[in-house]
Order: sequence, then C-alpha cells, then structure tokens
Amino acid sequence: MHPLTHPAQAPAAGADAVAEAEPAGRVASASETAAGPVSMPTAGAPSAEPALVTLDDIRRAAGVIRGVVVRTPLLRFGPPLPDDASGRTRAWLKPESLQPIGAFKLRGAYYNIASLPPERRAAGVVTHSSGNHAQGVARAARLLGVRAVIVMPSDAPAVKVERVRADGAEVVVVGPSSEERAERAAELAWRDGLTMVAPYDDAATIAGQGTIGLEIVEQLAEIDAEAGVGGRLSPFTVLVPVGGGGIASGVATAVKSLAPDATVIGVEPELAADGRASLHEGRIVTWPTEQVGRTIADGQRTGHIGVIPFAHFRRYLDGILVVSEDEIARAMVRASREARLVLEPSGATSLAAWLFHASELPAGGPVVCILSGGNVDPERYESLLARGIAAGG
Amino acid sequence: MHPLTHPAQAPAAGADAVAEAEPAGRVASASETAAGPVSMPTAGAPSAEPALVTLDDIRRAAGVIRGVVVRTPLLRFGPPLPDDASGRTRAWLKPESLQPIGAFKLRGAYYNIASLPPERRAAGVVTHSSGNHAQGVARAARLLGVRAVIVMPSDAPAVKVERVRADGAEVVVVGPSSEERAERAAELAWRDGLTMVAPYDDAATIAGQGTIGLEIVEQLAEIDAEAGVGGRLSPFTVLVPVGGGGIASGVATAVKSLAPDATVIGVEPELAADGRASLHEGRIVTWPTEQVGRTIADGQRTGHIGVIPFAHFRRYLDGILVVSEDEIARAMVRASREARLVLEPSGATSLAAWLFHASELPAGGPVVCILSGGNVDPERYESLLARGIAAGG
Repeated sequence: MHPLTHPAQAPAAGADAVAEAEPAGRVASASETAAGPVSMPTAGAPSAEPALVTLDDIRRAAGVIRGVVVRTPLLRFGPPLPDDASGRTRAWLKPESLQPIGAFKLRGAYYNIASLPPERRAAGVVTHSSGNHAQGVARAARLLGVRAVIVMPSDAPAVKVERVRADGAEVVVVGPSSEERAERAAELAWRDGLTMVAPYDDAATIAGQGTIGLEIVEQLAEIDAEAGVGGRLSPFTVLVPVGGGGIASGVATAVKSLAPDATVIGVEPELAADGRASLHEGRIVTWPTEQVGRTIADGQRTGHIGVIPFAHFRRYLDGILVVSEDEIARAMVRASREARLVLEPSGATSLAAWLFHASELPAGGPVVCILSGGNVDPERYESLLARGIAAGG
Repeated sequence: MHPLTHPAQAPAAGADAVAEAEPAGRVASASETAAGPVSMPTAGAPSAEPALVTLDDIRRAAGVIRGVVVRTPLLRFGPPLPDDASGRTRAWLKPESLQPIGAFKLRGAYYNIASLPPERRAAGVVTHSSGNHAQGVARAARLLGVRAVIVMPSDAPAVKVERVRADGAEVVVVGPSSEERAERAAELAWRDGLTMVAPYDDAATIAGQGTIGLEIVEQLAEIDAEAGVGGRLSPFTVLVPVGGGGIASGVATAVKSLAPDATVIGVEPELAADGRASLHEGRIVTWPTEQVGRTIADGQRTGHIGVIPFAHFRRYLDGILVVSEDEIARAMVRASREARLVLEPSGATSLAAWLFHASELPAGGPVVCILSGGNVDPERYESLLARGIAAGG
C-alpha cells in the first residue's frame, strides 16, 4: 500500500453496488434533493452515503460539453528525453487555464445547467462565488440562454465582477462573508424559483469536471499509440488540486474507473489542508476562514470539502499531498519559464507537488499535473513571480 | 483588391506550373544546392525563382512531426459570444508557445533533420542562432540521435546556452556579430561535413513550419462541424509573424492551397519592417542591424527575409502589417490576462495586429493569430508586462 494511502480509502461496503444500481446524475444529487443551496455539514460524516458519480455520467457530460470547452492538450514538462519507449516517464501538464474562462469550472457549470429540465432552465439559475465558478456559471448560462444571478462579495476584485457582468449575468453584491452570500443566494432561489448551481457539492458538477480525467486517459493512450506502444496503459499518477473537492472527485472517478492501476492524489496548500485532515479523521473537518484565507491559492480557500466529494474521496482518492506557499510561487515561476503558462496560485499547486514532493509519489510511470486555472491580474502575477524568484525560482 | 495587397503579390508567370512540376523538398532547396550556409543576397531579386514548397510537402512534414510537436489548440479570444452560427466571427489564438521548446521552430528543424539522407544525418548538423531556432535544432537532433553543433554569440543569455547544452548539442561561442556566427558555422560545416540547418531560407524548414497552416484549416473545419455548419469553409484571415519569413511562407502556402478565399497577412514590428519594404519594392531589402536590433521582438530582428521565403511571399502572402513597440507590450499583457499565455514579444505581434489594427483587415470572418513563441525570462517578462500596463494594458 502506498504511504499516502489513508485508512478511510477502503471502499465502503456496497459502495460499488450503489454506484452501479443508481447512476448518479442531477436527479440523485444532494443539491437536487435539497431545496435551495446545498446543505453544508459543519463536521461529522454524513448519515447516508450519497450516490457516486459513474463513468457513464462523465461520458454523458463529455458529449454535452464538446465544442464548448477546449480539449486541453497534455504538454510535456521536464527533461527533454523520455526514459522509456512509451515516452511517458516524466511529467505532463493538463492546462485548464486555457479554457475560455481561464479555468476548468466551465465544464461542470455547463453540464450542470445543460442537464436541467426545461422548466428549471426557463426559471434561471443562481450561485454564490467570488471566483472562477461565478465566471463558469455566467458563461454557461449565457451560452445556453439561461438567466443567471451571481451573488458576489463586496470585496470581490472589480475585474471579476466586470467579467461576470460581461457575460450577461445579474450580479448581487452582499457583505464579505461567505455565510451572507450563501444565505442571499438561497433567498433568491426561493423567491424566484432559481436553481442553485453548486460549485462542487453536486453530482452534475462533479461529472462535468470528471471529463478532465476522461481526456487524460484518452490522451495517454494516444501518446502510447503514437510511440508504437499499444495495449494496456501502464500505471500513471494524476495530481489534482483540492478546494471543495469537485474536480478531484470527478477526475478520480474517471481515472480509477478506466485505469484501476493509476494513482490519483489531491493537492492542497498546507495553510488550507482541511481535505487531508478530513481523510485522516474519516469525517469532514472544517478549518476556519481566518486560517484558510491565509493561502495565496485563493481557489483553495474552502474551509471544508463537500459531502458528495468526501464520498468520492473515500472511494477513489489515494491521498492528499500538501505544498507550501513558497513552493506554489516557485511553481508559478517554473510554469512561466518552462511551460509558458500563466497560472494562478491554485493552478500551480499540483505542479508544486511534482516539483518539490516527487519522493512522496509512487515510483515509476508518468505524472500528470492538472493546472486548474490562470486567472490572476497582471499586477498580482508580477508580484507573485517576484516572490517565486526570490524563493529560488 | 484588399488595401494591403501589394503590386508584387501577383503570381509570377508560370509559378504555379513550376510548383506543380517540381515539388519542393530538401533536394530542390537553396540550402541544399549551396555548399555550407545559405547564401544571403544583400539586395535585389534572385535571378532565378526558387521552387515553391507544395501542399504535399507540408502534408509529408505533418506526418513526420506527428507525436513530436504538439497539435496546439485554437483558443477563442475576445467577446464571449459568437456573432454567427459557425461561432467563428472573432479571433482565435494558435499558441505555438506551448510547443516543447516554447516556439514553433521545432516543427521545421525536426522535419529538416528527419528528412536528411542517412549518411548526412550520421555526419551531423550545424546551425547558428541565438534564439528559438537553436533550441529547435538541438532538441530535434537529440530526438533523432544526430550530432548537433550550434554557433552562438558571446552575448547570448546564459539560460539559452544552457538549454541548448541540456539537449546535448555542442555549443561554439563566437563574437557578438551575426557575420562571425555564419562564417564559423560554414567553417565547421566544411571541416566536419556537417549539414547546415537553415532557420528559414530552406524548403524543408518552410514545409515544417507550414504544418501550422494545415492544422488551422483542419481546426476551423472541426469547429464548423461541431457547430453543425458543414461544407465549405467561409473566408477567414490568418495573421503570422515575419522575421526571416519561414513560418509566414509555410503557413501562407498551406492556407492558400487549401482555402483560396482566405487572407494571410504577415506582421512585423515597425522597427524591423524590412519584409514590408521588400514587398513594396519587389526585391529583398536589407535593414541594418542597428535598426532592427531596436525592437523588443528579438525573434524578428532579422535584417532581411530569405530568398525562398520572398518567392513564397510574392505568390501567397496578401500583405504585411506593422505594429508599434507599445502595441506589442500591450498585447503581451492582454495575452497574460485574457488568454493566460506567457508570450515573448515576437509571439505577441500577430495579436497586437488584431487588437490595434483590426480596421486594416478584411471585414468579416474569423481571424487566427499565430502566437509564435513564449521564451522570455521571468525577470524580463515582468518588466515587459509593466511596460504594457503603463502603455494602457
């Protein structure tokens, strides 16, 4: 067993059967059964295991988002020459920063809204977010001709508010706390009959993000085929950032379903390592906002992972690695210099894990780093690059 | 006739017949017939028209480089919603900065070396360059198991010398002038029987770079198909940077051969607009090093375009636009903020043309900007971003 493997990783008894018998989709998701926003547990394991997203759900999502999202390429990173015939003994980057909104969030938001029944689409959607999810929902709603209301904090950067408005979404500004945002969104959902599009604690959102995992497996197989190496994929490792757990859940489900020998490891900033704490304790642990708010990785300042993601983590995730703030800034510099990619701090955590924690990964086989996004103002980007260079580049 | 169209653009009598009758390849190229380095005219049209690269040459190159270079995606840039059913009335970016060496040069260098006869590959190759072509040749030679000698100037950035050495190439350092480099490379070619891999004045190099044009046409057709728009491609415009003219020649040949209604326009910094001057005068014009050396676009500091590129320009190119230094820096900022791409100045000139000179382009239809590379040190990148922000972002 790999050292990162945690006790909670063993599949819950019958989990497989549940997943097979009740393919998760919008109907089976927690956000659907709850009226209004997803109910968030403060701590403790949920009393009933939520149904898991299946490979079929993710394949369906891939069909729906085709032509809307970019099939981001796998880019080589690291030493120039392959160590083996397959050309895969090195790191590959999956730059979701190249999506139209600069982050993977469009995948889940688009699939989520596209799979709503017609009468709910007609009524519109609502969400609360200060970050990439807001842009994902705004863009998806615009492309699908659906009304979108986004509740944003009063201290959100003007550029983010402008981008959401540019996509035609209605912006409702409330105080800076996330509780205020969630309450106001729930209120609007109730008042106007809007459907909440949850950023991670939702099966449809997870299925959409899972399409990244599907693409990775397909692309590694294509690379093998081009190198003349046919047949079964040899073992590989995927590093995926963890905030609320949506992308990690979807990716782990897709990858493990298609390639059971693969390893999927989440990555968190050590200042916001509540997900790792949750895996260790076998229950969802919440870290205070004052704590997680200290990381530069603004996309990973979620104080706890979702109920549905936690169930996927227990079933499919091999562990969570943590990285330091300096490591994140240094990975941003390396991505800029060696991969010519602008990454936001959250988008660089998986690369940081590979660059500075390779000894904690399974030996052998290629590593794929999912770079989740690149939305960072040039001014802030400059100062983060300077920090990374000062820390060793 | 489009305002950018220049008198020299009319096909030379019989050019088509020549191209058809004698498909260009390594054998027909000027670099092949010259012993040692490509002979560079100081001015004046060549007495005999060189044979033109054909679509078949470019297709052959595409087969050879498959799996070695990235099929870079077409990324949307600009307003979020399509203006027409095809989704193409806007700009698309073709980020060659995502190639393994951070620039398109690997395409031409790899195809060039791969198509050498076995005995010449066994003897090795030589080139002289301080930039991306050096890295392209070094990487291609390493992948193909061929000895490579790169003559670099004594003032080349240490990081560029290191990268070439990391790919196993032998580096020969001479004085700062390009004449010294060319002479030394010719000397080494003669002494050791090495084959000169020319950066642009070579049919095989041009065929390799032309694969970008092939991909653009394929990708626009795929986008149409995904949008449910079948049949013939509607008119579009391609913007491609011009230094020595290799990439513009290859791209224009591929695009015009497959889509005669398309427009292909070169882009130069106004401080190094010798290519435009050449088109206007109907002969290759040389600008002094002290002049072209002033542009921040180091990949376009070539004082004159090549003989073989000039023949392709006359046949296939619709004109050349020029952009200012501030426009280049501003385009770098826009690429960072809105496309999350690190571009070197030369890599941003085509985007600058679209952002700041759209009124000089044909009306209607999508525009594809070829972003040629992203090799810029983070320190220099920071200062160029600051310049671009100061100039208006």
